[in-house]
Amino acid sequence: MRLTPEQNAEITHSREVTSPTRRVVSSGLEEILFAALPVLDHGMIRVIDYMGDDSAIVQAARVSYGRGTRKVSEDKGLINYLMRHRHTTPFEMCEIKYHVKLPIFVARQWIRHRTANVNEYSARYSIMDREFYLPAPEYVAAQSATNHQGRGATLGSDQAKAVIDLLRADAERCFDHYEELLNEDARDPTREGLARELARMNLTLNTYTQWYWKIDLHNLLHFLSLRLDPHAQYEIRAYAEVMLDTVRRWVPHTYDAFLEYRMGGAHLSAAGLAVVRRMLEGEAVTREDSGLSHREWRELMETLGRADG
Amino acid sequence: MRLTPEQNAEITHSREVTSPTRRVVSSGLEEILFAALPVLDHGMIRVIDYMGDDSAIVQAARVSYGRGTRKVSEDKGLINYLMRHRHTTPFEMCEIKYHVKLPIFVARQWIRHRTANVNEYSARYSIMDREFYLPAPEYVAAQSATNHQGRGATLGSDQAKAVIDLLRADAERCFDHYEELLNEDARDPTREGLARELARMNLTLNTYTQWYWKIDLHNLLHFLSLRLDPHAQYEIRAYAEVMLDTVRRWVPHTYDAFLEYRMGGAHLSAAGLAVVRRMLEGEAVTREDSGLSHREWRELMETLGRADG
Amino acid sequence: MRLTPEQNAEITHSREVTSPTRRVVSSGLEEILFAALPVLDHGMIRVIDYMGDDSAIVQAARVSYGRGTRKVSEDKGLINYLMRHRHTTPFEMCEIKYHVKLPIFVARQWIRHRTANVNEYSARYSIMDREFYLPAPEYVAAQSATNHQGRGATLGSDQAKAVIDLLRADAERCFDHYEELLNEDARDPTREGLARELARMNLTLNTYTQWYWKIDLHNLLHFLSLRLDPHAQYEIRAYAEVMLDTVRRWVPHTYDAFLEYRMGGAHLSAAGLAVVRRMLEGEAVTREDSGLSHREWRELMETLGRADG
Amino acid sequence: MRLTPEQNAEITHSREVTSPTRRVVSSGLEEILFAALPVLDHGMIRVIDYMGDDSAIVQAARVSYGRGTRKVSEDKGLINYLMRHRHTTPFEMCEIKYHVKLPIFVARQWIRHRTANVNEYSARYSIMDREFYLPAPEYVAAQSATNHQGRGATLGSDQAKAVIDLLRADAERCFDHYEELLNEDARDPTREGLARELARMNLTLNTYTQWYWKIDLHNLLHFLSLRLDPHAQYEIRAYAEVMLDTVRRWVPHTYDAFLEYRMGGAHLSAAGLAVVRRMLEGEAVTREDSGLSHREWRELMETLGRADG
Repeated sequence: MRLTPEQNAEITHSREVTSPTRRVVSSGLEEILFAALPVLDHGMIRVIDYMGDDSAIVQAARVSYGRGTRKVSEDKGLINYLMRHRHTTPFEMCEIKYHVKLPIFVARQWIRHRTANVNEYSARYSIMDREFYLPAPEYVAAQSATNHQGRGATLGSDQAKAVIDLLRADAERCFDHYEELLNEDARDPTREGLARELARMNLTLNTYTQWYWKIDLHNLLHFLSLRLDPHAQYEIRAYAEVMLDTVRRWVPHTYDAFLEYRMGGAHLSAAGLAVVRRMLEGEAVTREDSGLSHREWRELMETLGRADG
Repeated sequence: MRLTPEQNAEITHSREVTSPTRRVVSSGLEEILFAALPVLDHGMIRVIDYMGDDSAIVQAARVSYGRGTRKVSEDKGLINYLMRHRHTTPFEMCEIKYHVKLPIFVARQWIRHRTANVNEYSARYSIMDREFYLPAPEYVAAQSATNHQGRGATLGSDQAKAVIDLLRADAERCFDHYEELLNEDARDPTREGLARELARMNLTLNTYTQWYWKIDLHNLLHFLSLRLDPHAQYEIRAYAEVMLDTVRRWVPHTYDAFLEYRMGGAHLSAAGLAVVRRMLEGEAVTREDSGLSHREWRELMETLGRADG
Repeated sequence: MRLTPEQNAEITHSREVTSPTRRVVSSGLEEILFAALPVLDHGMIRVIDYMGDDSAIVQAARVSYGRGTRKVSEDKGLINYLMRHRHTTPFEMCEIKYHVKLPIFVARQWIRHRTANVNEYSARYSIMDREFYLPAPEYVAAQSATNHQGRGATLGSDQAKAVIDLLRADAERCFDHYEELLNEDARDPTREGLARELARMNLTLNTYTQWYWKIDLHNLLHFLSLRLDPHAQYEIRAYAEVMLDTVRRWVPHTYDAFLEYRMGGAHLSAAGLAVVRRMLEGEAVTREDSGLSHREWRELMETLGRADG
Repeated sequence: MRLTPEQNAEITHSREVTSPTRRVVSSGLEEILFAALPVLDHGMIRVIDYMGDDSAIVQAARVSYGRGTRKVSEDKGLINYLMRHRHTTPFEMCEIKYHVKLPIFVARQWIRHRTANVNEYSARYSIMDREFYLPAPEYVAAQSATNHQGRGATLGSDQAKAVIDLLRADAERCFDHYEELLNEDARDPTREGLARELARMNLTLNTYTQWYWKIDLHNLLHFLSLRLDPHAQYEIRAYAEVMLDTVRRWVPHTYDAFLEYRMGGAHLSAAGLAVVRRMLEGEAVTREDSGLSHREWRELMETLGRADG
């Protein structure tokens, strides 16, 4: 269950209404406004509202009176310049608001980004839905042997099935007991229901929660640069990828600049840059005389596309 | 000079364009969108963009799928409840962006509020306009004798005129020299122009600057509660009052709740509350047996409307 | 288990070392530095570090060159003044760092305060301890009938015991399976261990986590004012009370001002203040002609100590 | 005049007092605590307080109970790892507080960094000192012809002298009139003094102000990375350089990692990285077939140390 028929009806109804506005409108984002974009097994992301588009960044950078230049090439050039030189404040002038359904353990990573506004569904006030995240078999992986905080190879299908069955059984049982403790509508008339704020502690960390989450474009890109990273946990990366696509629809010039100057490039350390300079001079640099650790050397060679490193 | 003909034309042009949007629209704010609302002698405030309205607060508080209840009375009740109980996060779900023209000494107070996004017109990059704030005679006041950081009685008209003349002469002269230093277009071909980032240091603090300033509704209300206070300097209060009126147009329920539960009420200290309780019991409390300082007592009596205090 | 012998030894060792410093020192806080102050059944709070004391607030308010006035009465008066008039920035000049062990569902409330720095124990990287929060019987309460987000009367001892037993059994079973999934040290050599970042999702929300949490004094007081409130959930209030006592030790003048001007007083709405004024004029105001809702009236009467309201 | 004899006496007195503390102590920083480090002609920076050192970063990253490992090499390795992988939260666990005297136009750039706590000397409350920044002749430069927001070649000594004389004369005259407006101690008994909050608007932007400024180490490094950049204005860079040296004294491992992984390295864009890879394959890449703009190409060649680019 991702959405109930009532929820779908509410969304459909919201999408049918349009009103005239003097504000800038992002046609790419309007197309998907309010629609539930699926993530993981029961999660989703919906764009609820937004403010500004690429032209608003240009307008703010120029502190201008009107809509700014109409030449697309100038706008694009300025946005590239701002991204390249870390002039971040104009990107803060765009804002977006999402409605996200996500497992609690993902929510706990996500909330560490403090430069956003959040309204979470309250389990003190309301009753949680019976929905848990269970990884698809191809994402059930062993602890990485080389990286303390990562996963390694996928488990065999029998082992994966055993893991999923166990996760499901525990989540179901804990939720059954959660409902038993709540004793809603005096299902068992011989006893009182436990306070919601207490009963919730029996839920497992893969239970889905939901929230409204609002952030400016600069901080969203920072969030994405961290959460799209291959080292980020798959379950949060899945959300980041869907959000990246909303950025593409919303502010296409900024999206291009982000890929070109942030995600697609690489940062070299002082020692790494020295290695590159020596190699470009024709020197045959080895790890031993590079000053780099094994790990740094391996990563540098990957960056430079030199598997023979 | 508040706006040049070109700037007016840009604003008029922006106001003529409307587009359909699925987002919630605040009709009250759309009416004045982009228009220059005058403040002080040359300053202004323009609403450039906004996100959300009263219904967005309700929607976020409920983490709902649709536009939320359609009953106005329920929305208003919930907004009052949220304001009364300091549930501030739903108010963070609305956002507004202003274009402000303001004297530098006002900008320096204003920027102390850190929970906003700012793009200021750059005097490193561009040349400032020849515009200074000169107080109207009725605002030219003496240093307060009782309040170290406030003004007292208005000066007589002759003295006020002398003050204004002196301020004008210094600002004009400094600006003349600023232009001389810049030597734009090689006005004086015998010498080079000074770097803008240096020349600007010759300007006086009443020179007008401008910025784009974006903030969420919760933090805007906090800003206003501080800057609408009678102890705030008049020159920044003048901006706060115009902004308060944009809040009234934008989110009328929130505006009412703000006046009722924040601005219109009063905070009593523990000792002040004890005094009120004793008075309500019929006791004739005096300052001496109240435990309050002279200043606290005077302020409490004013709050309670007891001039005889 | 709150602390292992090794942890106790580390703490004892840390407490034994002192070094000379030119910085201001809070003797009250030094006494308890590093010591584990117990909270709930397995939780704790430790003060790890701090910066500044009452005199640092005075010094910052005056932007002074030395240690500021040596007259205690002047310092105390200035701190009262700053607190009363919401001059919050000098209080931001003091900083404190805690090490906190707390149930995950409490951590999720706590983290909503974004103006702090946090380093949480990572369940991606490390293995969690087998420790769960189980409420003491006197805190096992029914859902409140009047307040959607609160608890009502305590359950009878049999029912409470049944609740606790069920919470314990589920937490233990989920933790058993968590360990089974991890398969540390190839306990079961026939299969691989699941990645830690996945296995953790099987834990219940009452599992204890821990973090380093650092905040400035102004934001700490704001946190405490919200979390000491009777409407806050008991389990987080228990932490707030221990932290309030560390504030008393650290900055005693600020502590007094906080109780006098924030916690001990009351905020009246515009309509509430109008009622008080009429009552002080001798009028017999009733709820009906007060303009207040039932709830607002009841709360006002409680504030004014008029049970007969 | 940088400091009055009274200020020097206060500083000397503060430096003489030491007290025992259980907190970690940075001996490198204690040496210079409270001392006025000169910047520009009349400015200065003083370290007023600090919390934590390199070991506190390690301790927070491990959420440990004691002082953490005593092996210096392990600590250094972990700090390098954290810096390299942008694990920024442990660096937020250290805090530093400065007292800074700086020209107002520098303060206006500086305050744009919002993640700090600030208490500025109030010109509403107090009277400013007669101190202005006047650039040394070697820093009086022309507007850059290539960079809109930078300075180019130094002016000839005659022109520089003329600039400085003009700046001095305007600053002095404006300050004379400021004092005349204030009319302190009824110097002119025939008229009232203007309110301080108004009189200050007559000051020029090179007037010195001062503030207490407190920030965590992560945000300080971010501030420094922007303000140490060659594109930053010289006058703020002068402060950043003195602060960088306080970082070296305070947290030497972090300082090394900062230089190695942030300041000393380089960020390559996606297209820039592609060029490097092709060059390493032995291809003779030209700007035309690189996909880079002239400016990007020039900057890349500089980064790679290939003047012949």
